[in-house]
Amino acid sequence: VSAPAGRDRPPRAGVLVTGTEVLTGRVRDRNGPWLAERLRELGVDLAYTTIVGDRPQDMRAALQFMREQGIDVIITSGGLGPTADDLTAEVVGEFQGREMVLDEALADRIAQIVRPLLKRWPNIDPEAIAAANRKQATIPRGSSVLEPVGTAPGLVVPAQQPGAGPTIVVLPGPPRELQPMWKQALEAEPLHAALAGATVYHQRTLRLFGIPESEIAETLRIAGREGVELGRLEVTTCLKRGEVEVVTRYEPDAQDAYDAFVQVVRTRHPDTLFSQDGSTVDEQVAELLRGYRAPSDAPARPARRRTLATAESCTGGLLAARLTERPGSSDYFSGGIVAYSNEAKASQAGVAPELIERHGAVSGEVAQALADGARMRLGADIGVGITGVAGPGGGTEQKPVGLVWLSVTLDGAEPITRSVNLPGGRADVRERATTIAMHLLLRALSDA
Amino acid sequence: VSAPAGRDRPPRAGVLVTGTEVLTGRVRDRNGPWLAERLRELGVDLAYTTIVGDRPQDMRAALQFMREQGIDVIITSGGLGPTADDLTAEVVGEFQGREMVLDEALADRIAQIVRPLLKRWPNIDPEAIAAANRKQATIPRGSSVLEPVGTAPGLVVPAQQPGAGPTIVVLPGPPRELQPMWKQALEAEPLHAALAGATVYHQRTLRLFGIPESEIAETLRIAGREGVELGRLEVTTCLKRGEVEVVTRYEPDAQDAYDAFVQVVRTRHPDTLFSQDGSTVDEQVAELLRGYRAPSDAPARPARRRTLATAESCTGGLLAARLTERPGSSDYFSGGIVAYSNEAKASQAGVAPELIERHGAVSGEVAQALADGARMRLGADIGVGITGVAGPGGGTEQKPVGLVWLSVTLDGAEPITRSVNLPGGRADVRERATTIAMHLLLRALSDA
Repeated sequence: VSAPAGRDRPPRAGVLVTGTEVLTGRVRDRNGPWLAERLRELGVDLAYTTIVGDRPQDMRAALQFMREQGIDVIITSGGLGPTADDLTAEVVGEFQGREMVLDEALADRIAQIVRPLLKRWPNIDPEAIAAANRKQATIPRGSSVLEPVGTAPGLVVPAQQPGAGPTIVVLPGPPRELQPMWKQALEAEPLHAALAGATVYHQRTLRLFGIPESEIAETLRIAGREGVELGRLEVTTCLKRGEVEVVTRYEPDAQDAYDAFVQVVRTRHPDTLFSQDGSTVDEQVAELLRGYRAPSDAPARPARRRTLATAESCTGGLLAARLTERPGSSDYFSGGIVAYSNEAKASQAGVAPELIERHGAVSGEVAQALADGARMRLGADIGVGITGVAGPGGGTEQKPVGLVWLSVTLDGAEPITRSVNLPGGRADVRERATTIAMHLLLRALSDA
Repeated sequence: VSAPAGRDRPPRAGVLVTGTEVLTGRVRDRNGPWLAERLRELGVDLAYTTIVGDRPQDMRAALQFMREQGIDVIITSGGLGPTADDLTAEVVGEFQGREMVLDEALADRIAQIVRPLLKRWPNIDPEAIAAANRKQATIPRGSSVLEPVGTAPGLVVPAQQPGAGPTIVVLPGPPRELQPMWKQALEAEPLHAALAGATVYHQRTLRLFGIPESEIAETLRIAGREGVELGRLEVTTCLKRGEVEVVTRYEPDAQDAYDAFVQVVRTRHPDTLFSQDGSTVDEQVAELLRGYRAPSDAPARPARRRTLATAESCTGGLLAARLTERPGSSDYFSGGIVAYSNEAKASQAGVAPELIERHGAVSGEVAQALADGARMRLGADIGVGITGVAGPGGGTEQKPVGLVWLSVTLDGAEPITRSVNLPGGRADVRERATTIAMHLLLRALSDA
């Protein structure tokens, strides 16, 4: 498919997230990031994500802004619910100069969907339901309907004339409704046309752990001096969960420039570069536990499956929750202990009370005893122990808030036991500690 | 302080989040929501939050849009780092018509801050550090400097003439730097002037659990018919973690209208309205465990402290992690067991293997045995057990993905054991199950 006449650049998109609850921070927006990723895969350039409240004038102003910036496709999320503050379909219809009409067949289909739900709430007023159905089935004339996943239909609302303005895709707010409906939207003709002519950029990710972001800035300067064509690469770096992520976007014919850049990073950061293929530490740990080697260029070794158990104090279950986020984690995750009190450390993980008395609950000795206890009690090959001061209270001069001891033990190998002083508040300390535990695990598994 | 001449409305703000990593969804924006809450407390009306990548033209267009919409204060986050893609200070300086100048004293202060950090990375190139310091100390002439919390200074950059455009507050991206610097910014004179004349709205929150959002829409219609002055209330409702949250904003003299609205909600939803003061189920459970009564209008009862232990299968530690999010949770949280495998259910929580064989690991019997096991093994007063099929695999016709059994047991009281069929993906099922566990706990503690 070639680009529409008069356009010699990739299509540009904008995401308009609506909802006072999102704007005011009461609900986290998960749709903007998800749509951003989908657009990237399509080679569409996302320029803006704007969040507005449930106020029609602000929604209109944001749509107008995106039209003025030459945006080809606007995707809205939210504001399709049954309450009066759900205004998106109406505002978009008006913006595109399209009258609102009741689609009777759609109202019937919504009624069908709602019927079984009513069983869960037998005392509900049927009039409330009928009014909600009619509201949700009133749509701009000439738009394509995306069949509801929940009860709200989505819409693809074209401009009055092809090319005379953006195509607007109207999607519901709940991610589990929005995501399948986006796939439907891609098949609608007006969106198809608006997205024509996209260049599929390459995007590659490097991940490093244990260096400051400024080191990457310097590496970029060095790469430039060494003749790497940085002008052909769009490099962005960021700190994420304590790791430095380097994402590079480039047109397919700039592959050589990217390869040269990676070579410079490899040379300067041999110990801290842990991912060259974008894989996360979570993925690498999971693969190694399953007995596979994650980094493709590592020497092949005999595969051996291993199981893992955790004993956590300050992280309170976060590491176990992170490990079990992955489907299929029961293949290698035996279980965990959240030993918050000293009694629980003793009774659940078998930490000797004398050890706690002698070294304190936050110590390398106790971290290692927790790791061993988890391993023994749960019959796993590898144990991880974490104990620390997450704050805000409980810190002392010797053991300040942010001090965390971690240990990874594994039968027949030296235990890896480390302390770190983590910055930030309680949530930061807990999250960062789980990341460090993942990296210690990665190290233990790579060496084993 | 009165509003600047010519303005008879509350000041309006816009938040501009910069960073390709945020726009593309690789990093979650935590600053927009946090700033939204701070602005609300100040009575400032947040109109837009816009996310742009590290592209100066897009940043400029978004600033221009906010100026055209009559925004009085723009707060930017991100783009102050040491790498070349960090452009915010420069773009804002140019937008406000202010030349960029190197602040030598500031460069020295940054050098002082950076010095101790260098010890952690002894092999770092000092030239890289010096260049980073100079870049971060180059600021628009006439702006107020906000002292760095990390290494990046923030800025308050006024318009050329007072009232001739927005005041722009430039803050760094990491939340733990941004948050203290926002407090500094509030003391800077240009921001102080721009925020003058704010009306402090009241905002109140109701929370309901176990009804669909459409029921609240109907309650609003009924309230209107019964004469509640809804025009004076800005009511927004949303589904959040499986709960319905009803947030109402109103001017102080509309208190009577709000009280009348609450009365209607109370009458229509006596069983499902669990919070009238905005307190969350997490807060209420914590207070009840500490021996306090959370709902202020409940009859006073003798206070009794209780301790809690968890045994989780499908949620894999998420409930323990949620309970230990709160500082001081060690007062009532004894510990938890993540019994992912059947062996762990037996060895750690004492679940009889016959019980699993007879009823299956996902059953009310096993949920209750997990709760009892957690309570006994960890010596706690209350036990919570969760077992379910989080998916995407592992579902059967009898026990589909999303089926979760939960149980709360407490010495001397009937156990509360329930099953639910939760929609959505693995992450949704796991998160929703922890919310339901919190509500079962709330019920058990309120009845006890």
